[in-house]
Amino acid sequence: MRCISCREDYGRIDAGTCKECYEEASETEEELKREIEELKAKVAFLRCSSPLDHSHRRSFSDVILVASNDDSAASAAPVPAHKSVLASRSPVFKAMLENEMEESLSGTIKISDVSYEALRCFVNYLYTAEACLDEPMACDLLVLAEKYQVKHLKAYCEKFMVSKLNWDNSVISFAFAHQHNAKLLIDAALSVITDNMDKLTKREEYIELVEKDPRLVVEIYEAYLSKQVNTAAHKDSSLKP
Amino acid sequence: MRCISCREDYGRIDAGTCKECYEEASETEEELKREIEELKAKVAFLRCSSPLDHSHRRSFSDVILVASNDDSAASAAPVPAHKSVLASRSPVFKAMLENEMEESLSGTIKISDVSYEALRCFVNYLYTAEACLDEPMACDLLVLAEKYQVKHLKAYCEKFMVSKLNWDNSVISFAFAHQHNAKLLIDAALSVITDNMDKLTKREEYIELVEKDPRLVVEIYEAYLSKQVNTAAHKDSSLKP
Repeated sequence: MRCISCREDYGRIDAGTCKECYEEASETEEELKREIEELKAKVAFLRCSSPLDHSHRRSFSDVILVASNDDSAASAAPVPAHKSVLASRSPVFKAMLENEMEESLSGTIKISDVSYEALRCFVNYLYTAEACLDEPMACDLLVLAEKYQVKHLKAYCEKFMVSKLNWDNSVISFAFAHQHNAKLLIDAALSVITDNMDKLTKREEYIELVEKDPRLVVEIYEAYLSKQVNTAAHKDSSLKP
Repeated sequence: MRCISCREDYGRIDAGTCKECYEEASETEEELKREIEELKAKVAFLRCSSPLDHSHRRSFSDVILVASNDDSAASAAPVPAHKSVLASRSPVFKAMLENEMEESLSGTIKISDVSYEALRCFVNYLYTAEACLDEPMACDLLVLAEKYQVKHLKAYCEKFMVSKLNWDNSVISFAFAHQHNAKLLIDAALSVITDNMDKLTKREEYIELVEKDPRLVVEIYEAYLSKQVNTAAHKDSSLKP
């Protein structure tokens, strides 16, 4: 019997689908690909011109954002934006701007504890849903996303940080994730940590964490214990006839 | 041999893929579905709050659009919008607004030959990439989309109108599509018309079209001729050994 996909011969034990099911699946794949193309076109259409993109002559911006704790004068340049876009993307900006608070009246929103670069990147994401991340930038943007409740950006940063998790950064990532309520990252970091419990107590970050936030250390041990119990239960049930 | 998708037995003649290819295809399907979910989330994130959505307390709009040929006073209500969004979505609005033309200075853009309802629907689409179409609305929006060069909306209307094509509306659709440079609809209408050439010359719209725009009638005959030649060539080649 010949596979109509890879053209190789196969026998009874390697049998997959019948022709009808294969054709149905191929059609489904075509349909899904078409849907992806349509959604990509929709994303391109809905993407706003970023006010930081200087290929546009005018941005019609009606509010500026300023990174308020940045030291260097050069980097304290304001970032132009639009009240309507900020309010669309973040319920925090929405409340701030709709309620005629200081920020709305003055047309200036101060963003504290952030670098100019991170602020630019944050604003850019609000317009385009795109960001070029490295690990420090992902941390900075996750903090901003949590503060201004931009869920889509927060999920994007968390996914990126999960993809960069390893034994060396797991304890720091775990503490960071806790501080900013990043559940996906908490769980992924816990999984890396509990896989390496034998080495944990020697790590400097562990010793610091015991000092600074022992409740988090308790959480690690609880996760480890629960993993052991689950593993034991699994072994037990697989031993039974 | 048993299909691992539908679980039915199949023989040599109904053989589809081998197990390996089936599993690979299933994984591809899962990946495509994940990509679709991600793109849908991106669309939801990028969708702007429409200024016509009254669940928002303030829309921060900086420009209004007015349907200028609408007779009834009640329907002449202005439609609020944002210069930044209009300029993002339409190169025509962009040029109008960036160049300090009358519209930009006055903050009012008059849209001629359009009903208030169609204008609302048009503006709504610019913010959300969504519209609830029927045939008259699809025509109105296609005209606006062509005039303001909103390609995404034009394609959306064309697809809708193609899906509604039949012998009864094909000649009118063909003429309409020509008037507004809608290539997809032109081709689809031509295909319906040339499938029914024997009935064509009796149709009232055909007689009108010969009067009003005989070049379009020539195009129909040319398409018919080319179809006949192709069909003949195809028959010819399938007759050869």
